[in-house]
Amino acid sequence: MKTRAAVAFEAKKPLEIVEVDLEGPKEGEVLVEIMATGICHTDAYTLDGLDSEGLFPSILGHEGAGIVREVGAGVTSVAVDDHVIPLYTPECRQCKTCTSGKSNLCTSIRSTQGQGLMPDGTSRFSYKGQQIFHYMGCSTFSNFTVLPEIALAKIRKDAPFQTSCYIGCGVTTGVGAVVNTAKVQVGDNVVVFGLGGIGLNVIQGAKLAGANKIIGIDLNSDREEWGRKFGMTDFLNTKGMKREDVIAKVLQMTDGGADYTFDCTGNTEVMRTALECCHRGWGESIVIGVAEAGKEISTRPFQLVTGRVWKGSAFGGAKGRTDVPKIVDWYMDGKIQIDPMITHVMGLEDINKAFDLMHAGESIRSVVVY
Amino acid sequence: MKTRAAVAFEAKKPLEIVEVDLEGPKEGEVLVEIMATGICHTDAYTLDGLDSEGLFPSILGHEGAGIVREVGAGVTSVAVDDHVIPLYTPECRQCKTCTSGKSNLCTSIRSTQGQGLMPDGTSRFSYKGQQIFHYMGCSTFSNFTVLPEIALAKIRKDAPFQTSCYIGCGVTTGVGAVVNTAKVQVGDNVVVFGLGGIGLNVIQGAKLAGANKIIGIDLNSDREEWGRKFGMTDFLNTKGMKREDVIAKVLQMTDGGADYTFDCTGNTEVMRTALECCHRGWGESIVIGVAEAGKEISTRPFQLVTGRVWKGSAFGGAKGRTDVPKIVDWYMDGKIQIDPMITHVMGLEDINKAFDLMHAGESIRSVVVY
Repeated sequence: MKTRAAVAFEAKKPLEIVEVDLEGPKEGEVLVEIMATGICHTDAYTLDGLDSEGLFPSILGHEGAGIVREVGAGVTSVAVDDHVIPLYTPECRQCKTCTSGKSNLCTSIRSTQGQGLMPDGTSRFSYKGQQIFHYMGCSTFSNFTVLPEIALAKIRKDAPFQTSCYIGCGVTTGVGAVVNTAKVQVGDNVVVFGLGGIGLNVIQGAKLAGANKIIGIDLNSDREEWGRKFGMTDFLNTKGMKREDVIAKVLQMTDGGADYTFDCTGNTEVMRTALECCHRGWGESIVIGVAEAGKEISTRPFQLVTGRVWKGSAFGGAKGRTDVPKIVDWYMDGKIQIDPMITHVMGLEDINKAFDLMHAGESIRSVVVY
Repeated sequence: MKTRAAVAFEAKKPLEIVEVDLEGPKEGEVLVEIMATGICHTDAYTLDGLDSEGLFPSILGHEGAGIVREVGAGVTSVAVDDHVIPLYTPECRQCKTCTSGKSNLCTSIRSTQGQGLMPDGTSRFSYKGQQIFHYMGCSTFSNFTVLPEIALAKIRKDAPFQTSCYIGCGVTTGVGAVVNTAKVQVGDNVVVFGLGGIGLNVIQGAKLAGANKIIGIDLNSDREEWGRKFGMTDFLNTKGMKREDVIAKVLQMTDGGADYTFDCTGNTEVMRTALECCHRGWGESIVIGVAEAGKEISTRPFQLVTGRVWKGSAFGGAKGRTDVPKIVDWYMDGKIQIDPMITHVMGLEDINKAFDLMHAGESIRSVVVY
């Protein structure tokens, strides 16, 4: 079949809207009509050529929502007309990681996904006879896409695509880091570094978990209003402040340090600060942001020996098929907000504007509606 | 009163055995006759001038066992003739940390202890009228010493002093890191870096917890026999191996990485290797070793984002007054071994030999018996 898609033909060039060829779903695969997709920093990271493993030409996009239009042989967990969210972290429920119950990082199709291919080692996309790579197993910048069954979360039909697509990455990453990775409890003090989309979702996750103080930190004071909208109790603009002074200030605001801190910046220096703002004896710092290639985090081991814990979180520790439908429920039940975070909505033809808005810091989240 | 003690008059000089003056216990304090004391790397670290906060002249030693000889006003938890183990990490059961239930790092007397003084800000030791500092709140290299009541674990009277003194530091640090900090469970795979006294105690803690593979790593093949004595199932001599090769080998031996790794070396490069030998998704690495001043640990944040956890452990996460008596029971019940680890026993007059043996790598643990 033919489908309209925004193709990344090469790094550092705008996406091009073209008609590509899409093969139908093979065994265990599903054809999905994407109804809406968010544009995320990770798409920009790859498009800007910063991801050393980025492949071109490819169809980016990994934060979508849509409708099942056709299922391949043997597919049992979704059916035509089901509403679904594509999962860049699948949940096979069979591999060592899934059966361990300790992690969401399903390994069943990791190697082919990393190569931009479907599990059988081929691509479903082509353009003028040339293979186009899949991206993060999703390629939601195509109106129609094919995914493995294990990479689809079935969601309720009354959830609007335009907002629930954001649960495919940003919402789950932020809220899940609080709920699944940190397991914040009622009364805990939380500090969030970086009040972009992920940081705001960490804030609303902390509010949902009943945190006491929720301190937001950013270099941009405009973000204070955004943070307060989602439950932030205190704001700190650390522009121009020395690292030691940031730590001293947070320790003073939290009576000795935070129970949990979250890095939502991808800056390795901030990751260190976030760890060192934790309370001696038990504070845990969770790295969410993706660092530049080659960058490393450092600290004195004394920080760990005296009881701080350094962790990370990918896709909010969420097991996609199990947890994403619950987060959709939380949204539909008003426990978390998404609508105010969708600052820009556009057609596919304007998708490059979404990247510009992101780079300019003007959007929280742009969404393309097909 | 007078008491015989090995005094560290200055850094990098042998200890001198002299008679010092000891004031009796003030309110909340206890006079203890030390019956036996281990000599630990931390004592050597301070004596060698590597601890920037080391104070001289002082009476070192923090791994003792003894008998209560006199109690000050208001002391209720121990009485004359009780057998006790001094605690360099006290347990006041009143401070924010103790009442949190989340950490053993009691803060009630931390500042004065760090200054080499009793909680009232003075020292009980003097020599020829000159004040001598306490050390880690214990000073077990003195035949008699004074401690705060909250820094004494009361233990059963049938436990031999010569071996149970080792529970005052090394045994608890190693076994406790497994049991309290990592919480190793039956069937877990464990890797221990560095098979000195702490490493051997980690091994026997892992055995006690029912670990599956217990892999010991050292640069000295003589340590293989030691490791196997306490439950090590596999040995790896990594001398001359590249870091990447060590990691690849451990991942191969553990089907993808360890559930828990322990650094017992104090080497920050080894700490990194230990983290990176953890299983993707859930492996946890526990730093036990004390690094050189100024040294830092580093890794790529990707290690954390993909599910590895970096932690530390001090005094094995043990709440001294609560947990140390239990570890004495484990020893007396044959659940853990200590006797084979006590490789050298000597009188106080030979204490400098204990440091020589340690530096030469010839002892697991030397103990001074008074």
